[in-house]
Amino acid sequence: MHEFNLIQKYFTWNKPPSGVGVAVGDDAAVLNLSSNKQLVTSIDTFISGVHFPINTPPHAIEHKSLAVNLSDIAAMGATPKWFTLALTLPEIDSHWLQAFSKGLKQLAENYDCFLVGGDTTRGPLSISIQVMGDVDKGQSLLRSGAKIGDKIYVTGTLGDAAVGLQLIEYENNEFDQLSNQLFCEQRLNYPTPRVNEGVLIKHFASSCIDVSDGLLQDLSHILESSNVGATIDTSSLPLSNSLKSIEKEKAINYALTGGDDYELLFTVDPANESQFLMAINSDESYRCIGFITSNSGEVVDENDLLLKSVGYNHFD
Amino acid sequence: MHEFNLIQKYFTWNKPPSGVGVAVGDDAAVLNLSSNKQLVTSIDTFISGVHFPINTPPHAIEHKSLAVNLSDIAAMGATPKWFTLALTLPEIDSHWLQAFSKGLKQLAENYDCFLVGGDTTRGPLSISIQVMGDVDKGQSLLRSGAKIGDKIYVTGTLGDAAVGLQLIEYENNEFDQLSNQLFCEQRLNYPTPRVNEGVLIKHFASSCIDVSDGLLQDLSHILESSNVGATIDTSSLPLSNSLKSIEKEKAINYALTGGDDYELLFTVDPANESQFLMAINSDESYRCIGFITSNSGEVVDENDLLLKSVGYNHFD
Repeated sequence: MHEFNLIQKYFTWNKPPSGVGVAVGDDAAVLNLSSNKQLVTSIDTFISGVHFPINTPPHAIEHKSLAVNLSDIAAMGATPKWFTLALTLPEIDSHWLQAFSKGLKQLAENYDCFLVGGDTTRGPLSISIQVMGDVDKGQSLLRSGAKIGDKIYVTGTLGDAAVGLQLIEYENNEFDQLSNQLFCEQRLNYPTPRVNEGVLIKHFASSCIDVSDGLLQDLSHILESSNVGATIDTSSLPLSNSLKSIEKEKAINYALTGGDDYELLFTVDPANESQFLMAINSDESYRCIGFITSNSGEVVDENDLLLKSVGYNHFD
Repeated sequence: MHEFNLIQKYFTWNKPPSGVGVAVGDDAAVLNLSSNKQLVTSIDTFISGVHFPINTPPHAIEHKSLAVNLSDIAAMGATPKWFTLALTLPEIDSHWLQAFSKGLKQLAENYDCFLVGGDTTRGPLSISIQVMGDVDKGQSLLRSGAKIGDKIYVTGTLGDAAVGLQLIEYENNEFDQLSNQLFCEQRLNYPTPRVNEGVLIKHFASSCIDVSDGLLQDLSHILESSNVGATIDTSSLPLSNSLKSIEKEKAINYALTGGDDYELLFTVDPANESQFLMAINSDESYRCIGFITSNSGEVVDENDLLLKSVGYNHFD
């Protein structure tokens, strides 16, 4: 099948929304730029056998490829608007393509994010997705804005995806007592990008990142960019019922170091905190887990024990 | 080497130009959107062993990956501004990376196009580049604007890259009399994106495309999108001195069907032609090669012989 037909058949979904001048079918997409807005863009590549096992179903691949990019846009406090897809396929398998295209469309529609172009090539299976969004000028959430005394917040629960990875990849049998294994596997394969949360918190947060490599690792990016340190109250880390069903120390370790949760980790100036709490309407899926300190690059726990400093990770 | 270090070492080049709020080093790039402008974006993937031979030097890979995307932006009459790079490498080879990064930087700077972000992963060698540019609102050159009676123009010379491919890939010995083989090989490996030409012609052209798959093939996209036909004067096709040194019929065949030249093919309303000719200052690198007709989807030569109709190509 010719590349153009493949794009026509599987990736031309809807009438483009307003804001899209030209979508699939010309040399490039043309997108309206509104004034007073900034374009925010993020790209990630997923390779079969590297980022996902070779026999991963198309739905899981497509979901994660788009979701992690949406999560990066969310971590900037921006609103996703458009994306492009560079898809490399070893062969044209129409069942695979139908499942991939259907799932991608569904997830994209859930976030009002429109496919505006792409490229299909033949080769080892890989997917590059670039999401473009916008944000009011100067309003994007950077890693560099955390100040001493700011409260540290996180959305959702932590460590679930890392436990899911142990279950799926390593068939780790230390989780015999774990309740709801499927939940952890779903958290790994079908992460929820916190787009609405990003848009909400951008009015109150001083810095933000998404948790892709683990809480301590991603927090350290904020600390380095902002030249500050942090204290984490490990007893207040948000744990799912699944993680609560395993040994407490182990669960906390997963919550501190496990990657792939794609929750938002952000800081809030105490002066804005009451307004923030009103805005989230005491939603318990936002949890305060600590505060920013002057100990540059160091993370300690509630007993002042070192959890991580640049170049040294107690839990690795 | 950690992904972040690799980006810091090889792909953090300059102080970002104005217009870039945040570049490499946060969750996503933040780019200013000026009012009255539209964002134009194009993405292409290049895979080792598919789009280039496995031992292709990094300079050739990097040049072509960026140049063909710049060419797509040029074919829209837009100005390239930013790009992202998704780079997949089988291993971290610092010599390879240094050469790749140096060449990419040079080409990007030639076109004032700034690297704003990307992703590096481990896997079979592949490169996805997405260029983003802008254009005054409603001014982009589409494939769909050609009208009956419009003149058909092309930049540069045609068929060179296809002859270069024969020389390099197939070691074709029918070109013993060809002068300057290196020229044709360079045209294949180091195409010149016609960015300045695209910006100039956008004031006069009614439609435009870049010649990536061959003149007849790419012209047919304009004809289909515009619902018109074309007459091509084969005696006026622009041929390089190299192509003039081979049998005339063969040279014309390469000029009509050879891909990879990345010249601009565009149409001009006769009412705008004198202004257009003044603007290009009689530059002979722009050549009129025919005109648009009412014979939907059909291309004939100066003797009314069919060169191509949708689904049938005389020269394939």
